[in-house]
Amino acid sequence: MNTTTTKKTKTDGLTHELSRLIGKENVLHLLEDRICYSYDGSKQKYLPDVVVRPQSAQHVSGILRFAYEQEIPVYPRGAGSGLTGGAVPVKGGIVLDFTQMNHIVEISPEDLTATVEPGVITQTLQNEVAKHKLFYPPDPASAPFSTIGGNVAECSGGITGLKYGVTRDYILALEVVLANGSIIHTGRKTLKSVTGYDLTRLFVGSEGTMGVFTQITVKLLPLPEKIETLLAFFATTQDAVQSASQIIFNNLLPRAMEFIDKSSINCVKGYKQEIQIPAEVNALLLIDVDGRESSVKAEASLIEKIVRENNALTIASAKSSKERNTLWEVRRAISPALYNIAPYKINEDICVPRSRILEILDRIASIHKQYPSLKVASFGHIGDGNIHVNVMYDNGEQQRALAERMIEEILRNTVEVGGTVSGEHGIGNVKSAFLSLEIPPMELGIMKDIKQLFDPKGILNPGKIF
Amino acid sequence: MNTTTTKKTKTDGLTHELSRLIGKENVLHLLEDRICYSYDGSKQKYLPDVVVRPQSAQHVSGILRFAYEQEIPVYPRGAGSGLTGGAVPVKGGIVLDFTQMNHIVEISPEDLTATVEPGVITQTLQNEVAKHKLFYPPDPASAPFSTIGGNVAECSGGITGLKYGVTRDYILALEVVLANGSIIHTGRKTLKSVTGYDLTRLFVGSEGTMGVFTQITVKLLPLPEKIETLLAFFATTQDAVQSASQIIFNNLLPRAMEFIDKSSINCVKGYKQEIQIPAEVNALLLIDVDGRESSVKAEASLIEKIVRENNALTIASAKSSKERNTLWEVRRAISPALYNIAPYKINEDICVPRSRILEILDRIASIHKQYPSLKVASFGHIGDGNIHVNVMYDNGEQQRALAERMIEEILRNTVEVGGTVSGEHGIGNVKSAFLSLEIPPMELGIMKDIKQLFDPKGILNPGKIF
Repeated sequence: MNTTTTKKTKTDGLTHELSRLIGKENVLHLLEDRICYSYDGSKQKYLPDVVVRPQSAQHVSGILRFAYEQEIPVYPRGAGSGLTGGAVPVKGGIVLDFTQMNHIVEISPEDLTATVEPGVITQTLQNEVAKHKLFYPPDPASAPFSTIGGNVAECSGGITGLKYGVTRDYILALEVVLANGSIIHTGRKTLKSVTGYDLTRLFVGSEGTMGVFTQITVKLLPLPEKIETLLAFFATTQDAVQSASQIIFNNLLPRAMEFIDKSSINCVKGYKQEIQIPAEVNALLLIDVDGRESSVKAEASLIEKIVRENNALTIASAKSSKERNTLWEVRRAISPALYNIAPYKINEDICVPRSRILEILDRIASIHKQYPSLKVASFGHIGDGNIHVNVMYDNGEQQRALAERMIEEILRNTVEVGGTVSGEHGIGNVKSAFLSLEIPPMELGIMKDIKQLFDPKGILNPGKIF
Repeated sequence: MNTTTTKKTKTDGLTHELSRLIGKENVLHLLEDRICYSYDGSKQKYLPDVVVRPQSAQHVSGILRFAYEQEIPVYPRGAGSGLTGGAVPVKGGIVLDFTQMNHIVEISPEDLTATVEPGVITQTLQNEVAKHKLFYPPDPASAPFSTIGGNVAECSGGITGLKYGVTRDYILALEVVLANGSIIHTGRKTLKSVTGYDLTRLFVGSEGTMGVFTQITVKLLPLPEKIETLLAFFATTQDAVQSASQIIFNNLLPRAMEFIDKSSINCVKGYKQEIQIPAEVNALLLIDVDGRESSVKAEASLIEKIVRENNALTIASAKSSKERNTLWEVRRAISPALYNIAPYKINEDICVPRSRILEILDRIASIHKQYPSLKVASFGHIGDGNIHVNVMYDNGEQQRALAERMIEEILRNTVEVGGTVSGEHGIGNVKSAFLSLEIPPMELGIMKDIKQLFDPKGILNPGKIF
């Protein structure tokens, strides 16, 4: 069957207009192409009417001017790896695929900055700046495939948050295309600037609902000379959490400090036979220390001492990159391994003040008792209180409903202990129902007013956040 | 003469109403009191109608609700040490003096956070957290007397910017009273949170024009174990600037890296006889290195090597706190010493990408040639490209006009090399005429729309920024 028909569809009309604007080679209209852009990491599926692949800010500006006039929804998309539905075109319209705007415009070792297009893969940026002995610290688990544009839109976090902060802390300047197609520039390529309101950081984490990034200037640090990894085995969660607290009390800020609970350990054991974890181990801490060689050595041995004092059963340490990879294998295996327990999962990313971690884990355990048919595994960035709570469930509407009810209880409890419903994944459409658990009506009203100011016709990523 | 008269003044009316709201002990109406609140660090003078000293967010809320209904200008004020007129009541009305809301609400070593009222002196916070071996890094020169509230309003920088960033990077959550008296809460006491728009950082640096802070939660770091100071003497500016660049190229991030030019050196020599600087010295670099003891030692000796390779004439180093103070004396003496050259000065705080520092210093020297009757001294935070350019002039309208013309040329050139007209002092009313040199009309329009959203009646610090 031929894919073109005589009846003129919405897709045909948009394809014609957009091809005129940015060239037909940059417009995808076939159903098989559009299907590829209908989903993202949240596993939802909404078919866009058309997909465009802009090559420049001018392209983006032209597309948005057109979409604004015609009031067509526009969905910016990087790698589509987001977990809260940030990139799914829930109202159809145009998907703006940024993967071809993937050039590193400049790396400036003297200024400790890099300027990139939004489609650059985060790990590509990390690797390229490393060639200059420079360091782009934000390190979401998706770094090997997610884009900087998506990271800025979601204010991505990752494993280095405790010591190095999150994406927000590294964004100096942005080129942004507004809803009506205007191109603006915010911020400066300087470490300090206080001229007027901080539009740059207002755009960071706005999830594509206020404007579309076409160029991003990031702050870099010198590349740490050395990284050392420690993997500590504990008989109880309490010992692991207490160790993490004591490390911080002792004036240490590890580059990474990952907690892995018993359910996650069990999953990993079943998934990878070569990962050897003794039966009496019920919690793990995986710790990276970085810096100058001499201080890494001092800090690693201090951490080892603290962890031992807090009843660690064993401690494995790794200095070479190969050995470090082996220790990290256990952490990396968790996400795929979880599907060994049950075919479906909801992955939350609550974040609580560090002093409340044990309390929230206890509360989650209590909540779990009311949902015996569900499985729960928790792991994540204990250093910054950011725990990925995974609720796993079997096929069926009833199981899904139970899981959602349990998630809501967990989020409610998170807010009660002073935490946030999303540490690093954003709201998208997946979590928008839970936003009001945390954000009171007046604050939410202000956010909506700001949205209205930037996007009066509601064409930018509609259906997200609010 | 009695200060009360039978004619009811604006002050009388406000005093009556505000005393009813927050108690007469918290309202100052006498002329001699109001004069104390008529100026700030910018040396302008505008008399407020009344001064209130709130003790709580509820007080602030009540005052603002009243001011909103009556459309009376409200001027929030910390220590009044700002250099761009942020606290001067240019349209009269109410000054909100926050110096009595100066309580440290909580220091949480486990969470690495502190929660404070806005009137806490920055150095008080630094000292109090240091007792817990914690570190609040932003360190403006005004830290011994400026308040955290003022620091947040201006997004203060200081000497630690290169390594540790600025105030913005340490603000986690805010309690804010809006123009109409509503109390809102933004952010979370967690290192990560991406729920909705980042209102917290939108308020940081908004100079009291969008809302008034009543509680501030800051992020803390572990206190560095050790600080070492180096003072390097150079025959040329080029050698000093080149040294600073080479230090960063060599993967080092000093806690502080201050540049002092020849004019500033000459001032200091005349001001303090005990500071001995050889005649052939035309530039200084003052460098602090901090961290773990072993790495400080390694970094300080690396820096010494780099500085020597870049033709340093001599290098003094200091390890004890007393010795460090002696070396820093030369930096601290500059500001008061400048008045030895001429009775008036305009102190700018331009910030350029580090790679353009030599270029901007050259341009300033060229501009200076056209204004031979003025004196110029430059010093500041070379590590982050933030240079305090001081234009000194004699009494008289003509001299003042010349100085202002020269400043405008310097700011224009700063923007041309990719810099910002204010690295850390803010805009206030002193620099508002220069804002459009840097911020294009569309971006400025967005900022004004946001101002309008938060302050529809224009009662919050009117006459500032725009």
